[in-house]
Amino acid sequence: MPGVDAARLRAFEDFALRLADAAKPVALRYFRKPLAIDTKADESPVTIADREIETALRTLIQATHPDHGILGEEHGRSGLDREFLWVIDPIDGTKSFISGMPTFGVLIALLQHGRPLLGIADHPAMGERFVGIAGAQTRWNGAGCRVRDCRRLKDAILFATTPDMFEGDAAAPFERVSRAAKVRRFGGDCFAYAMLAGGHVDAVVEAQLQPYDYMALVPMVEGAGGIITDWTGAPLTIDSDGRVIAAATASLHKEIRDQLNP
Amino acid sequence: MPGVDAARLRAFEDFALRLADAAKPVALRYFRKPLAIDTKADESPVTIADREIETALRTLIQATHPDHGILGEEHGRSGLDREFLWVIDPIDGTKSFISGMPTFGVLIALLQHGRPLLGIADHPAMGERFVGIAGAQTRWNGAGCRVRDCRRLKDAILFATTPDMFEGDAAAPFERVSRAAKVRRFGGDCFAYAMLAGGHVDAVVEAQLQPYDYMALVPMVEGAGGIITDWTGAPLTIDSDGRVIAAATASLHKEIRDQLNP
Repeated sequence: MPGVDAARLRAFEDFALRLADAAKPVALRYFRKPLAIDTKADESPVTIADREIETALRTLIQATHPDHGILGEEHGRSGLDREFLWVIDPIDGTKSFISGMPTFGVLIALLQHGRPLLGIADHPAMGERFVGIAGAQTRWNGAGCRVRDCRRLKDAILFATTPDMFEGDAAAPFERVSRAAKVRRFGGDCFAYAMLAGGHVDAVVEAQLQPYDYMALVPMVEGAGGIITDWTGAPLTIDSDGRVIAAATASLHKEIRDQLNP
Repeated sequence: MPGVDAARLRAFEDFALRLADAAKPVALRYFRKPLAIDTKADESPVTIADREIETALRTLIQATHPDHGILGEEHGRSGLDREFLWVIDPIDGTKSFISGMPTFGVLIALLQHGRPLLGIADHPAMGERFVGIAGAQTRWNGAGCRVRDCRRLKDAILFATTPDMFEGDAAAPFERVSRAAKVRRFGGDCFAYAMLAGGHVDAVVEAQLQPYDYMALVPMVEGAGGIITDWTGAPLTIDSDGRVIAAATASLHKEIRDQLNP
């Protein structure tokens, strides 16, 4: 249960929704328009849309909650030691965004003492928004949503954004697990987790993620009845190693974990 | 140029649009609903949505053009020797469809003596429709669209639906080509070709496709200024080997072809 009272949590939720509302028109203004694509130090692409959204959200946070910390993909981190920390990916799936693919999302999380209180995955191009609140049921465009009751890997639809995220000692375990699924599928970015929360995908296994890629997904997946941890089964924190398992059920999660760590 | 006069071509186009209009509500009725997923002989999934759409389209074609042949994914082929042949994929991207991903599409092509006269890629969940007519500019929701002027692989965004489609002697060439692209990305199904026609993706390289996967894409890509062939550079026919290169420009197409066939 979250360590804030219901009224305060509700106020944070309202504010987080304002952030998502602020991001959406900026994303849509740049989507499918010719954009300069810069390459960052980690060779990932970034556009003015990523930067402008994050700047807008930081401005709102600093104006409303000057005592909160912020960790964003594009403009760094400040106040990581504060009680409340906003973790933001202005465009998760920048490669999808620049390719005209609508699955990209805006990810917004609020942590208290490092634990996620709320997470929003907003998908502007599809008009779909997932809101996860600690201790409450996840909502998909306002309606409650739930994972599907899939308990075995052989029955599961398993997603990863790209095989290229599994390097070194992550490659063989991923290959083993994903080949054992009923269907393995690539692409999707954060939307694969949303479809897990919505009961259409059963598992997502990824690696090389950053805190802004996964923190917002934690309350979303958990509030839909799913389980999301690192590959060892430990809770995700901003210091996790970037390897993530999300699964619809405990038994599916255990089977994946066991196969990843034989 | 097509071997039919403008009025007849226009009548075929109107009829093809009627087919797409008939498919759309069926796809949306079943999208993100619990569906039984059957596995076909080739281990690909199929649902009642695939079958019901194809049945509806076949019924319309047989009623309106009883002298035309039909080649569909789910219900076989008839009249392949007729002058006019409809080539239909009721749901391209069934794995996306059953995963809640909106990139799936309905593909409808009309061939005359084996050459494509028109192709429609309709994406019901996104409300996006691409219409390609031999000798005319491709339209995206009614407006003309065009490929981007990308001439070098090192500048290109390259898509394939999944790395799992490259087996045997296709694996190494695909790996070589896709690694040389600026961005390589998986997922997308037929929508990757649509985004190529729309100027957001520069190349799609695939294998193990069937005629119903690619015939509708030919007029769509060509009418947007792009090039689509098999891996040797030969035009796609219903007898092609299922290996496809689509590229925004002739120089990019040649570079991909040269790297696939060193």
